[in-house]
Amino acid sequence: MTGSDARVGDLDERTVLAHILDRVGPTGALLGPGDDAAVLAAPGGRIVASVDTLVHGPDFRTAWTDGFSLGWKAAAVNLADIAAMGARPTSLLVALAMPPETTLGEVGAIADGLRAACAELAPGCAVDGGDLAVSDTLTVAVTALGVLEGSGPVTRSGARDGDVLAVSGRLGPAARGLSLLFERFRDGAGRPIPPRTADLTADERGDLDAQLRPRPPIADGRRAAEAGATAMMDVSDGLLLDAARMARASSVTLDIDSAALGGDASTALTGGEDHALLATFPAGVRLPGSFAAIGRVREGAAPGVLVDGEEPRGRGGWDPYQDWDRGRG
Amino acid sequence: MTGSDARVGDLDERTVLAHILDRVGPTGALLGPGDDAAVLAAPGGRIVASVDTLVHGPDFRTAWTDGFSLGWKAAAVNLADIAAMGARPTSLLVALAMPPETTLGEVGAIADGLRAACAELAPGCAVDGGDLAVSDTLTVAVTALGVLEGSGPVTRSGARDGDVLAVSGRLGPAARGLSLLFERFRDGAGRPIPPRTADLTADERGDLDAQLRPRPPIADGRRAAEAGATAMMDVSDGLLLDAARMARASSVTLDIDSAALGGDASTALTGGEDHALLATFPAGVRLPGSFAAIGRVREGAAPGVLVDGEEPRGRGGWDPYQDWDRGRG
Repeated sequence: MTGSDARVGDLDERTVLAHILDRVGPTGALLGPGDDAAVLAAPGGRIVASVDTLVHGPDFRTAWTDGFSLGWKAAAVNLADIAAMGARPTSLLVALAMPPETTLGEVGAIADGLRAACAELAPGCAVDGGDLAVSDTLTVAVTALGVLEGSGPVTRSGARDGDVLAVSGRLGPAARGLSLLFERFRDGAGRPIPPRTADLTADERGDLDAQLRPRPPIADGRRAAEAGATAMMDVSDGLLLDAARMARASSVTLDIDSAALGGDASTALTGGEDHALLATFPAGVRLPGSFAAIGRVREGAAPGVLVDGEEPRGRGGWDPYQDWDRGRG
Repeated sequence: MTGSDARVGDLDERTVLAHILDRVGPTGALLGPGDDAAVLAAPGGRIVASVDTLVHGPDFRTAWTDGFSLGWKAAAVNLADIAAMGARPTSLLVALAMPPETTLGEVGAIADGLRAACAELAPGCAVDGGDLAVSDTLTVAVTALGVLEGSGPVTRSGARDGDVLAVSGRLGPAARGLSLLFERFRDGAGRPIPPRTADLTADERGDLDAQLRPRPPIADGRRAAEAGATAMMDVSDGLLLDAARMARASSVTLDIDSAALGGDASTALTGGEDHALLATFPAGVRLPGSFAAIGRVREGAAPGVLVDGEEPRGRGGWDPYQDWDRGRG
């Protein structure tokens, strides 16, 4: 029995794998899934490679998300890392570790989400390989690969005095969506319960969607590289925290203009998980794609971040080792 | 406090990462760890990519292994997948998900093991990137990348009637080492206890070492490709099970000569985790490196495996979804 209610612990690996491969769709690989390794084209002789993991507990709660959203998010956060180097994502490799009670339907939904995110955010990128494992903790570790096309890579360390600091993508919605879940969708004992979207306003539904299925502006990564971006990274843990990393890597001060951050500047400064692209461009460059200026680069005695010329308070972001409350659900 | 007893849950991500990067050693990457993604050289315009995961519970018990061995094994099993394509491993990307109570000393030992395995088994390959996450379940997901140098890739599907079937590397020791652990190093309640190597014979110590720190013949992957191997794979789940996969992919029958498998043919046929290389070569080719003939390829009405001309009984190997007993320890 291999219906969508079948549990992977009652099936063999080959059956589970076939169910996934039916879904992840056509691969552009020279050799796709099914052998010991995939063979991928690397035109130009360089590739960009990154890995990011979603773990049940610190990174998602099963009551709050679903397989499709989980697959989508696992793809999106990794595509953003490749885009943030100025590269075009070409391949995902997915290590999926699942409890035996995971159903084939859930596995298929994860695969559908991976494919849909690639199709919408990074056309031409596909799941070209992976690994199946069993685990007490549902874990999706995705390796993303990409190619540099002439220009790039754009590192975090190239920001220079006088550059414009700019962002493409949204800052804040994913964090507001997470707050909604913690504040509105827990039972009396604090346990996660499925969100009832009928109880939400349109804005709140947008925030929840941004948390569960982020849409980083992947194509703007290449555009930034072509436009001459001097530094770039994706904002995964919060603008203040990530900008401080760029500031340290570049030995500069990044001065953020809070008025450029929209009506909820506080959340824009500290909220993570939108995976917007943060980049610096030489002054006078026409900002590409959806990039908009949010500040400027200054030489500083000690590298760091200022907001409206002043030092911000607090850590300003998420640290997995300090901030997970050990909850799952 | 960042001594080796410090727990990662009491530290920040940056401290844990610095501790790892101090250990994984020099990278040959164009751009190594520290940015959104690594930039790697891909001479020849093709890369080979694979991912494999070690999960606390089904893949290892903490009472039976240690951080160094865990890092070593995570590297070795992935290097074997790259070698099995006829490629030379160049880079590892490591997604490490750890419980907050993991100590900095354990993290450092995992990093040391990853580096040592690369240095011994695949000189020139290094940890070029990764991701840190927290999880209730210690999980090491490694992506390995490699390059094809002129020849290759060698897939599973190229075996042809009349080819010689050959193996490089050992078959059986890792499985015997696992049996030792289950039979000799559990307490009265069946829980894993640390192995006392003083209680073991020299052969038994060798088997335990093969289970905890496998040494696949990585360089023989390239040698096989250069010698004209028609099909290749690594033996991860057991010779009978893996050979059956090659037989199906190639639409042939693989006839194994049990006399060529040494004194413990039964374990050699069904035991996994040695990650030997199984390959087919045109008849008359001088077998490269440590490859030795163990049978031949025949056309068959139904693709499959024969042992001494007869059909073997049983499944002949390990399936993670069917065979994990849910134990951890």
